[in-house]
Amino acid sequence: MTPNPADSIMECIDQLAKISESPNWLTRKYLTEQHKLANEQVKSWMQGAGMIVHQDAAGNIVGRYEGQTKQLPALMIGSHLDSVVMAGKYDGPLGVLSGIAVVQALYDQGVRLPIAIEVIGFADEEGARFQSTYLGSRAVAGNFDETLLSTLDESGISLRDALMSFGLPPNEIINAARSNRDIFAYIELHIEQGPILEKKNLPVGAVTAISGAQRLKISVNGQAGHAGTVPMKLRVDALVAASECVIGVEKIAMEISGVVGTVGQLITSPGAPNVIPGNVEFTVDLRAEKDRDRDLAFLRIKEKFKFIANKRGVEITFTVTHVAKSIDCDPRLIEVIGSAISELGWSVENLPSGAGHDAAAMASLVPVGMVFLRCKDGISHSPEESISNEDASIGIEVLSEVVRKIADDYSRYNFG
Amino acid sequence: MTPNPADSIMECIDQLAKISESPNWLTRKYLTEQHKLANEQVKSWMQGAGMIVHQDAAGNIVGRYEGQTKQLPALMIGSHLDSVVMAGKYDGPLGVLSGIAVVQALYDQGVRLPIAIEVIGFADEEGARFQSTYLGSRAVAGNFDETLLSTLDESGISLRDALMSFGLPPNEIINAARSNRDIFAYIELHIEQGPILEKKNLPVGAVTAISGAQRLKISVNGQAGHAGTVPMKLRVDALVAASECVIGVEKIAMEISGVVGTVGQLITSPGAPNVIPGNVEFTVDLRAEKDRDRDLAFLRIKEKFKFIANKRGVEITFTVTHVAKSIDCDPRLIEVIGSAISELGWSVENLPSGAGHDAAAMASLVPVGMVFLRCKDGISHSPEESISNEDASIGIEVLSEVVRKIADDYSRYNFG
Repeated sequence: MTPNPADSIMECIDQLAKISESPNWLTRKYLTEQHKLANEQVKSWMQGAGMIVHQDAAGNIVGRYEGQTKQLPALMIGSHLDSVVMAGKYDGPLGVLSGIAVVQALYDQGVRLPIAIEVIGFADEEGARFQSTYLGSRAVAGNFDETLLSTLDESGISLRDALMSFGLPPNEIINAARSNRDIFAYIELHIEQGPILEKKNLPVGAVTAISGAQRLKISVNGQAGHAGTVPMKLRVDALVAASECVIGVEKIAMEISGVVGTVGQLITSPGAPNVIPGNVEFTVDLRAEKDRDRDLAFLRIKEKFKFIANKRGVEITFTVTHVAKSIDCDPRLIEVIGSAISELGWSVENLPSGAGHDAAAMASLVPVGMVFLRCKDGISHSPEESISNEDASIGIEVLSEVVRKIADDYSRYNFG
Repeated sequence: MTPNPADSIMECIDQLAKISESPNWLTRKYLTEQHKLANEQVKSWMQGAGMIVHQDAAGNIVGRYEGQTKQLPALMIGSHLDSVVMAGKYDGPLGVLSGIAVVQALYDQGVRLPIAIEVIGFADEEGARFQSTYLGSRAVAGNFDETLLSTLDESGISLRDALMSFGLPPNEIINAARSNRDIFAYIELHIEQGPILEKKNLPVGAVTAISGAQRLKISVNGQAGHAGTVPMKLRVDALVAASECVIGVEKIAMEISGVVGTVGQLITSPGAPNVIPGNVEFTVDLRAEKDRDRDLAFLRIKEKFKFIANKRGVEITFTVTHVAKSIDCDPRLIEVIGSAISELGWSVENLPSGAGHDAAAMASLVPVGMVFLRCKDGISHSPEESISNEDASIGIEVLSEVVRKIADDYSRYNFG
C-alpha cells in the first residue's frame, strides 16, 4: 500500500470493483469465480500487511495479525466482499479494506498489541445468489443453517453443489464457526446507506443497533365497478381505502420516534383507467431500533386499518411475511467508538442502522460495534454509491483509534 | 315471437348470446363471422315483425316498418349488436329486441302509425376490435372518420380490409349516412350499467344526458431510497403523495354534485417492498352530466395536486389523454319518456348516463332520448350482467307508450 492509507484503500476498492460477473456494472455473488478472485486479491493485501491468511470452510477470507504473543484473543474487524446485482463498490469492501489499513499501519510501524487482530472478508452478506443473507457471518458465529444447503440459485444450482464446485466440502462448513474464547469482539465499518450523517455534516457516526424489521402483506377488498356509472356515494373503492392506509403508515411511523414505515409495493386490480379498483395489495416494511417501538407501530397500524375498513366497508387482511428482532450494538463498544470520534474532533452522532449487516449475525457470538461512514446522498445498492477520500481517511483514523482503545483495555470484554 | 313480448325477447337475447367468437363466453366484434350471423338472425326477427330489412354500408342492420303511407319520416329505435370481450348479453341487444317487440305488437294488431319506425342494430358501439367507439352509429349520423380505415386490429387487419372481407366496399361507407329529413328522432333503451335504479327500487328511468368524460395521466416524482435507512422526515415518498391525490380526487368528486372521479390505474416504481417509491403514475377518469361541473372538478384537482406537490416536495405532472363533451338528451324526449313511465305507475327518475351509447353519436343528427332499465347489482361488461323478465316487460311497455306519444305529436320535432 502507498503511504496515504485512504488513497490506497480507495484504489484497492476500485480494483476489487473490477472483479465482477458483469462487464457493465458490479455484481459479485457468493461462490462464483469472482468470489474466488476477490478472495485471492484480498489475501495478497492481507499478507502485505503482515497477516497469516486462510479461507475458511464457508469461503470467508480471514487474515490474522498476531499480538505481542501468539494465541492472544482477537478483535475481529470486517465486512463483506459479495455484492448485490448492480452494486456500489463501497458497500462491504470499505470495511474489509479499512481493517487491513489499520493492520498495515501497525505492521509498518512494527507495533504488536496486547491482542491479536483478525480481519475478515465475509463471503455472503447480501444473499443475492441464494436469497438468504449472512451466510458467511452466520457460519463464523456458529449459526449456519444446514437446511439451506438445498436452496437453489436462479440457475437451479444448490448451495451444496455450489460449495463443492468452489472446493468447499459442504459437511465441513461447521468448521468455519469460531469460539468466543478466541474472538472477543467484532467491529465493522460500513457506509451509512442513508442520509443522516450527510444532513448533519458529519463524516462518521456510532451505530447503536441494527434495526428490527417486520414485513406485512395487506389485501384490501372493495367492489369493482364502472368509473362512469357508479355514483360516488355507492362506491367501495379499494384504492381510496388503500391510500388512507398508506398515509396512515406514514403518520404512525412519524409519531413514534425511531420507527420507519414504508409502503414500497402497491398493486391495483383490475387496474384499468375506467374501472373502480376492486382490490389493492400492498406491502408494509416496518423497522425500528427498539422492538417495542416497532410492536407499537404494528399495533397502531392494525387499529388504523381496522378503522379504515369499518369506515369504508372494505375488507382488509394481513399477513406477516418476515420478522427480525433488532440487534443492539454493545454499549461499551458504542462508547469506545464515540470517544474515538470525539477525540478526533467530531461531534458524536449515535444512529441505528436501518439496513442489515454482518454485525447482526456476529452479535450472537461476541459484542459488536459499528462505525458508519457518510455516503453521498445516502445512495447505496447502486453504481452511484460514493464516498470521499477525506471521509475514508477519517474512517480509518477512527477505526485505528478504536482498535488502540480496545487493545488498551480489552479485559473489559467478556470471554466465553 | 310468442305472445308475451318480454319472454320472447329474453329468448331472442339468449339465442343471440350464443353467436360468439368464444365457446366459453360472449364476444362479438365488428365485421366478424359472428357479426354476420347476428345480423342475419336479427334480420329474420325484423322481417317477422313486418319490416323491410337491409344491411347498410357500415354493416348496421336496419328494419323499416312503414306508417300509414310510404316515405313518412321515421322514428329510429335501436342499440348495438357488437359486444366487448367476455360481455354480458343485454348490453346492446336489449335495445334492438325491444324495438322489434314494439313493432311486432303494432304489426300483430295491424296498426299503422302516422310515422314510420325504423329499428337499427348498430354494428360497432364498443370499439372492441378497432379501439374506436360508435363506428356504426357515427356512419349513420354522417360522421364516419375515413382516416380510421387504416386502423389495425390485434391481428394486424385494417378496418379497410375487414370491411372488404365482410363484403362492404370501404369507399361506400358514407352511404350509410342518413338525413334528418328521413329520420326525426332516435330512441334507445339500454341497461343502466350502474346501481342507481336498483337502489331506488325502480325498473326504468329517463336519461338526461350522456356524461362528458376527461381522462388524465399523472406522474408523481419523489425520491427513491432504502426503506430502512432514510428517516421519515427526510423522505420524499411519491406513493404517500399519490395517495393524498387519490383521496383528493374522491373528495372533490363528492363535493360537486353530478361528478364522478376515479383513479383506476396506479403504478408504483421501483415497486419493491424495501424501497421508498420514487415515482408513481396514475390515471384520473372524470365524468359529469354537465361539462362545467367536470371543468370545475378538473380545476380543483389541479389546485389540490399543486398544493400536495408543494407540501411534499414532489413534482406532479399532468397529461390530458382524452376529452369528450357531454351530450344532452332532447328535453322533449326526456319529457315524453317521463310521461310514459309515470302513466305506467312508476315514479320518474331522471339520471345521466356515465357510460357512452350510440345515442351520443346519433345526437349530432337528430334529437335523442334514452330509457334506462335496471340491471342486477349495476354489473355490466361481465357474464354476470342480468335483468329480470318483469323489468324487460316494463321496458317494452314504456317504449311502446313512448312510440305512441311521439307518433301522436311528431310535428313537435324539427325536420332537417
